[in-house]
Amino acid sequence: MSDAQDRKQDGNTSYGHKPFKRSRSHFADRITADGRDGWPVEAGRYRLVVSRACPWASRALVSRRLLGLESALSLAVADPVQDDRSWRFTLDEGGKDPVLGIGYLSEAYDARERDYPGGVSVPAIVDVPTRALVTNDYQQITLDLATEWTGLHRPGAPDLYPERRRDEIDSVMEDIYKDVNNGVYRAGFAAEQGEYEAAYVDVFRRLDLVSERLDGQRYLVGDTITEADIRLFTTLVRFDAVYHGHFKCNRSKLAEDPVLWAYVRDLYQTPGFGDTVDFDHIKRHYYGVHTGINPTGIVPLGPDLSGWTAPHHREQLGGRPFGDGTPPGRVPPGEEVPARGRP
Amino acid sequence: MSDAQDRKQDGNTSYGHKPFKRSRSHFADRITADGRDGWPVEAGRYRLVVSRACPWASRALVSRRLLGLESALSLAVADPVQDDRSWRFTLDEGGKDPVLGIGYLSEAYDARERDYPGGVSVPAIVDVPTRALVTNDYQQITLDLATEWTGLHRPGAPDLYPERRRDEIDSVMEDIYKDVNNGVYRAGFAAEQGEYEAAYVDVFRRLDLVSERLDGQRYLVGDTITEADIRLFTTLVRFDAVYHGHFKCNRSKLAEDPVLWAYVRDLYQTPGFGDTVDFDHIKRHYYGVHTGINPTGIVPLGPDLSGWTAPHHREQLGGRPFGDGTPPGRVPPGEEVPARGRP
Repeated sequence: MSDAQDRKQDGNTSYGHKPFKRSRSHFADRITADGRDGWPVEAGRYRLVVSRACPWASRALVSRRLLGLESALSLAVADPVQDDRSWRFTLDEGGKDPVLGIGYLSEAYDARERDYPGGVSVPAIVDVPTRALVTNDYQQITLDLATEWTGLHRPGAPDLYPERRRDEIDSVMEDIYKDVNNGVYRAGFAAEQGEYEAAYVDVFRRLDLVSERLDGQRYLVGDTITEADIRLFTTLVRFDAVYHGHFKCNRSKLAEDPVLWAYVRDLYQTPGFGDTVDFDHIKRHYYGVHTGINPTGIVPLGPDLSGWTAPHHREQLGGRPFGDGTPPGRVPPGEEVPARGRP
Repeated sequence: MSDAQDRKQDGNTSYGHKPFKRSRSHFADRITADGRDGWPVEAGRYRLVVSRACPWASRALVSRRLLGLESALSLAVADPVQDDRSWRFTLDEGGKDPVLGIGYLSEAYDARERDYPGGVSVPAIVDVPTRALVTNDYQQITLDLATEWTGLHRPGAPDLYPERRRDEIDSVMEDIYKDVNNGVYRAGFAAEQGEYEAAYVDVFRRLDLVSERLDGQRYLVGDTITEADIRLFTTLVRFDAVYHGHFKCNRSKLAEDPVLWAYVRDLYQTPGFGDTVDFDHIKRHYYGVHTGINPTGIVPLGPDLSGWTAPHHREQLGGRPFGDGTPPGRVPPGEEVPARGRP
């Protein structure tokens, strides 16, 4: 998850008191081509820290793949289940990230600011030489990967945030953020029935509108994949696995909406999307960490994932997934999602 | 729910310690035509106490309707949400059942046996003159309604437990009981991951077998509705609303299995089945009472119920729902399910 509030919710300390409110990112420095915040784009200098469970971090996973930034920006994957000290590198040998040499992401936060009072969140970008956090600004990180890191993009990288479409992309993303990306959390972490119901209504009203929009066009904006699709994808791919049951967004499954179900499978089957998704991490995180809404910690065996790889027929709508570009290459060795996380 | 174990689970006192085990009914007297247990079948003498939330009690609700026993055996409907003293008559004026004059079902248990140590469960049949419980034997009550109460059946009542089919009915019901009726509870109340997973596997293995069986035949046994269909129905009708999410039986929704979904809607639309079902009671009970697995008490708004009244096309398989009999008449005044409990 992304922020202090999530962490508190995860730790089950703030239940039943006040409505769910997502905190702002505390560290909002930007890594830019001109280095104006002191952090110039530079190959090999930074490390992207994610959890494959987290929808906000997963945006960066997808963007990094689509843009071919894997060798320029290395990757650390945290254990999907945090402990009291938050995200940790227990998946790595010796329980330490091999590049940063730390066991907890919080150590990079502490290296940046002593006694920082907020939560530890992913995605995070860490400066490797100083082992200090640069940014955990989940709303900005992917925009900068698309627009500031261009000098390091692979040949054939798509333009995920095309200038002439930005107003439309921003507007679509804002509605989806409010009602869907964050709406499912407002539903799931609601402390009261009325708060839950308001969020549920927002989620499905917006999903219905998005479904209508996508009925006749392959992607959200224009005829190519953009940042808007990435942000919708990372929520939709979790919908039936966790938001439907765990967060009570259960009017219907995504699999029951022919348009959205085809749309999300189209993206899932596009190189750079599905190859970043670990359903095992997703389910173990949500069901294992949110003891305030799942005190037994039991992780459901369902849903059946076999449909994810079935034909979606969205190519009949036309569209040029990568615009004038090309699909990304294979997943780098060592970054493959294990079989138990895949359909 | 039906028994002591359920009550303890409901009260969240026995979580995380031992596997879910359903208790036997403590009071197993039978009401028979010959009155050999001291309880002869007699019109107007007994009162059936149910919760419309409870699948075991709902069997009796359906049987009573199909057999036309409404005027012979009166009905008390408990509040779907128990309190510390269990099932209560807070839906009735003054918080008391108008016939028995009691506020809690436990008073009828106490009238039968002082300091009875077990739980208070529905369905229960109470002797009106003495206000004492006769039986809470959920496995026997409906069989006796079908075979002992025949003298009071309506003209055209179906034979729900035909003699020449009993071995087959018993065998089908036993498998379904173990894996499905009780299997969903084993999954939902599992204290450990392994226990949950074993139950989940049982549930869906059996549902797949039942789905195959029902692919070419309209009802479970023979070509008419029997006790076996009633017992499967009361679990299936709750499946997507509570067992899928709340009990984590989430491989797929019933609505995703074309055969079972058509089968259960066929029954739902048959007089005597759907007119006993209150989805509002069902959801408020499960999500409100089981604080051990839903500590917030928030009740989901979903699932969308509109499909329940859509055409099912099962009549194309033939079958004679009531055999040589006829459908039951209208629901008696005062027993209608309120609009908010219906699709």
